[in-house]
Amino acid sequence: VNVEYINPFIDAVLNVLRTMAQTDAKAGKPYLKKDKASQGDVTGLIGMAREGSKGSIAVSFSAPCILKVVSNMLMEDFTQLTDEVTDAVGEITNMVSGGARKTLSEKGFKFEMAIPTIIVGERHTITHMTTGPVIVLPFETPHGPFFIEICIVDINR
Amino acid sequence: VNVEYINPFIDAVLNVLRTMAQTDAKAGKPYLKKDKASQGDVTGLIGMAREGSKGSIAVSFSAPCILKVVSNMLMEDFTQLTDEVTDAVGEITNMVSGGARKTLSEKGFKFEMAIPTIIVGERHTITHMTTGPVIVLPFETPHGPFFIEICIVDINR
Repeated sequence: VNVEYINPFIDAVLNVLRTMAQTDAKAGKPYLKKDKASQGDVTGLIGMAREGSKGSIAVSFSAPCILKVVSNMLMEDFTQLTDEVTDAVGEITNMVSGGARKTLSEKGFKFEMAIPTIIVGERHTITHMTTGPVIVLPFETPHGPFFIEICIVDINR
Repeated sequence: VNVEYINPFIDAVLNVLRTMAQTDAKAGKPYLKKDKASQGDVTGLIGMAREGSKGSIAVSFSAPCILKVVSNMLMEDFTQLTDEVTDAVGEITNMVSGGARKTLSEKGFKFEMAIPTIIVGERHTITHMTTGPVIVLPFETPHGPFFIEICIVDINR
């Protein structure tokens, strides 16, 4: 996997959480996803494509973590995964992918981004349909961990 | 929403289920998604984008329906949402989006498709982050209903 694809997502999510939700996240060591076991309660997904490569990005939170993040973001106390929380995760996904897209574009990788989709459901699993590597970026926050999965593959046409 | 976007997906899914899983599905009347209440147990998601528009497609099954479909497809009896079932849903999503992409391309809409993502989790909800319309295509099969959600919007740059 092209490591140049990774850092723009790390920078974007740290920046978004800090500026939008006053949450200092700490990036852990990226690793290759080996099985399908990682589970989240709320996941923002976004597809991306450009001539010659395509991918999918997942930003996945546990309920306790995202409730705190969104409570900070909207300055209101959320204790349930309401529609407002779902929409806020959509905004976060949009801002993270938009920020990463900008950086990637400056490096010469001009991706088109699809419409983000938000999945809400207790402990769901995410599987990227690819034979290529899926990189997991783990993060720690004071409210608990979350992770980003990045799957971008070059394709032959 | 451009109705020309809709039929290629209906044709593709009917064709894929018939040829791959000997399952005759019947398309119901498309409707506009009004709330976030529709739930599936297994969902294949794929993002799509082209110059000037972007979208996301969800193909969402209840567990009983997809278990029968995949049992037919792989000629083996599946009673649990195993990795094989997940992978088969990925294949179905790939084939549906690939078939629709081909038809759309012939009409002059050349979309790039992202990598499909499969979500497995009891009764999860799907939210497309858009202000545009989300079209729901309901289908009936002898094994139960399933649905496709189509969200494609034109964007200004």
